[in-house]
Amino acid sequence: MKEIKVYLSEKDIPRKWYNLAADLPTPLLPPIGPDGQPLSPDKLAPVFPMNLIDQEMSQERWIDIPEEILEVLYRWRPAPLRRAVYLEKYLKTPARIYYKDESLSPAGSHKTNTAVAQAWYNKQFGIEKLTTETGAGQWGSALSFACQLIGLECKVFMVRVSFDQKPMRKAMMQVWGGKCVPSPSEETQAGRDILQKYPDTPGSLGIAISEAIEAAVMDTSGKTRYSLGSVLNHVLLHQTIIGLEAKKQLEMISEKTPDVIIGCAGGGSNFAGLAFPFICDKINGAKIDIIPVESASCPKMTRGEFAYDFGDMAKMTPLLAMMTLGHQFIPAPIHAGGLRYHGMAPLVSQAIIDKLMAPRAYDQLKGYESAMIWARTEGTICAPETGHAIAATIEEALKAKEEGKEKVIIFSYSGHGLLDLAGYEKFINNQLKKYILPDEELKKSIKSLDGLPKIPS
Amino acid sequence: MKEIKVYLSEKDIPRKWYNLAADLPTPLLPPIGPDGQPLSPDKLAPVFPMNLIDQEMSQERWIDIPEEILEVLYRWRPAPLRRAVYLEKYLKTPARIYYKDESLSPAGSHKTNTAVAQAWYNKQFGIEKLTTETGAGQWGSALSFACQLIGLECKVFMVRVSFDQKPMRKAMMQVWGGKCVPSPSEETQAGRDILQKYPDTPGSLGIAISEAIEAAVMDTSGKTRYSLGSVLNHVLLHQTIIGLEAKKQLEMISEKTPDVIIGCAGGGSNFAGLAFPFICDKINGAKIDIIPVESASCPKMTRGEFAYDFGDMAKMTPLLAMMTLGHQFIPAPIHAGGLRYHGMAPLVSQAIIDKLMAPRAYDQLKGYESAMIWARTEGTICAPETGHAIAATIEEALKAKEEGKEKVIIFSYSGHGLLDLAGYEKFINNQLKKYILPDEELKKSIKSLDGLPKIPS
Repeated sequence: MKEIKVYLSEKDIPRKWYNLAADLPTPLLPPIGPDGQPLSPDKLAPVFPMNLIDQEMSQERWIDIPEEILEVLYRWRPAPLRRAVYLEKYLKTPARIYYKDESLSPAGSHKTNTAVAQAWYNKQFGIEKLTTETGAGQWGSALSFACQLIGLECKVFMVRVSFDQKPMRKAMMQVWGGKCVPSPSEETQAGRDILQKYPDTPGSLGIAISEAIEAAVMDTSGKTRYSLGSVLNHVLLHQTIIGLEAKKQLEMISEKTPDVIIGCAGGGSNFAGLAFPFICDKINGAKIDIIPVESASCPKMTRGEFAYDFGDMAKMTPLLAMMTLGHQFIPAPIHAGGLRYHGMAPLVSQAIIDKLMAPRAYDQLKGYESAMIWARTEGTICAPETGHAIAATIEEALKAKEEGKEKVIIFSYSGHGLLDLAGYEKFINNQLKKYILPDEELKKSIKSLDGLPKIPS
Repeated sequence: MKEIKVYLSEKDIPRKWYNLAADLPTPLLPPIGPDGQPLSPDKLAPVFPMNLIDQEMSQERWIDIPEEILEVLYRWRPAPLRRAVYLEKYLKTPARIYYKDESLSPAGSHKTNTAVAQAWYNKQFGIEKLTTETGAGQWGSALSFACQLIGLECKVFMVRVSFDQKPMRKAMMQVWGGKCVPSPSEETQAGRDILQKYPDTPGSLGIAISEAIEAAVMDTSGKTRYSLGSVLNHVLLHQTIIGLEAKKQLEMISEKTPDVIIGCAGGGSNFAGLAFPFICDKINGAKIDIIPVESASCPKMTRGEFAYDFGDMAKMTPLLAMMTLGHQFIPAPIHAGGLRYHGMAPLVSQAIIDKLMAPRAYDQLKGYESAMIWARTEGTICAPETGHAIAATIEEALKAKEEGKEKVIIFSYSGHGLLDLAGYEKFINNQLKKYILPDEELKKSIKSLDGLPKIPS
């Protein structure tokens, strides 16, 4: 019998992160200001600590992981690589399906990997408090956890609709000392402005980001910074430990390079964490299908534009070159909260433009259907976001069966769904609707790109 | 650096369960009928399948674990043995603290170990449906999970107060196809009787057991049986895989026999699962402190009587020789729902009488305080029940510090608290009260033992 769980020992944990920026065929477009000029690092200094800004701009292929960060990560890392033998059997597929189990982190998702790194770098820089936004609550929980262990205060602006759907996420943040308020809130100018215009808004990550940045830069002590849970280069960098571990684990069991790599993608960091370390192989000629999976309710990769856009609704961020639906996009209140961001990480966006990967979108019903198949075969309850990745995994496993090929499929099991059971309950009771972003909504939100600097062709 | 996670490979999983009944210094008292006569196995046949009744009565020291059961358990077993280095550091203790991480099972607790075994034996016996009760919801979830994977229907009567406090437990059972109703319910005579007498009752495990047994024996098809999540010999037997794995894991890292073994104990199966395989060593002369930990709101081990008592309120079960508060006991609605049962497993009770172990009780505030220390050092959020075990662990670690001894402490991390965050929130907001069962309540409930057959002295 082959073991279905592959454990990497702590001493073999990767000691460097991988930076795809060093290897992208097309160099990454720099962030720019509203004037169209590339942003100098000091412009970001009120928002991020300089050590993370350096990382954000870095072109180094490998970046050392400080030992103190590893000391925190050992609580759950290296994460097991597992084989989904029960799902394989159910699907009668010749494919071998592997997944990295990121649900084992104390906060329940991959987010904790960068949360710990960011908290540590901020602490090193003398920062005492971090502000952030959260959608589904995974990021807010992860940063609260990290701040507790590293010794920082943490303030979280949580998208209103998720705050209401998932009250226990707030409790979780409190356990780790984090303070959580629904966004838009009355605590910031950005929040007050939105509330005046749309008093009943479900909120959005774009709004919550505006509030969190404002709360950071308005703190006159200079000891507060902002922390982002996805999208940016340094965030994706910290997640590459997932794929780097996976490579070692596949080697341990003498498994070949995967044929298919899958991850759900909201801002892109979970997907990138698994996929980026394998992209080298693809650039060097390996035939790998790489599939970022998004929600059909927020389809920036499959239906958005590649353009310079703001990361937030109040236009407080620099302009980033990304696949986007426009920063004014307000997503429908579907349950996979982590997939509701309007833009995709510049590194992932550029890799899509360079045809290194082919995105795919599923609606939430497909996500829950797939999550239910998973729960009733593999046994565990996944995050609704992860359900989207499982949808693609099932599709690819069935394709392999049709083709009669022994493909190796690997996906990121990005988080558990134990705080998302209200969504499951609605799905089981047929209270969820299929929702695909209508064309007119798409056109409307894309309009917010009008007048912004264009990507040079 | 020593690794803080000790993984046992799947091929080294224990292949036999350990039956303490074979080694107890005082032979276990048999279950008896209301007439005081030992129960013949056929009396139990309407309630349990014969293969489990045989196991319940067995005096064999080692009992084979069927391969088909292991095939289900591999999803999360062997469970890691972990060292709590971060808690050790926080406490500045010379003790080495280990714990078996039972929270990794899909249903989130140790309960899944016996759920799978019981579902499998019932299926083998031709049974199609199981009924059961659940307190905190861990057992109902575990049995729903097991029934889904083994292919049985599952009906769960959930103690009303927990049903209301933990709505997501019901959703979890539904994900795995289980049907869950609050108890007392209108579906059984036992439920209707209680509701008429106490319309506002928070319910109790004793009542829910009555309902579940009634629902099983009243099914005229003969294809329904009842399943109990703790207390009985065969249930404790199935849990011994925990301690048997732990022994192998301690050996792997060349660690000595533990000085202290700790587990929280509601009905006793979690505690027994870890402790029983080590009791042999104690019987053979090893000096080990073995500590079952209960809730001060339900103190049958520290303040109850050792007597023949019913397992349920409606007196449908046989009489078991156990430490008990009396079957009419209605526990206060504290948050550690799994610690609210009125009786302790006969095997554990006899071992206490034989002075093989020394029970301890903590109130719920102490439990949450300890759980918070854990969350802010080790990082994970434990079940409130587990918090009681951590309270004892911390006490013992500090004692080792005082004595300047390098003790080895091991405890069972019986479950996660991700569906118990409402309790944490109340604790953080100072909405929970210290509650210790008052003497007059104790006296009142002990009275329900009057008139029952006595244990021969």
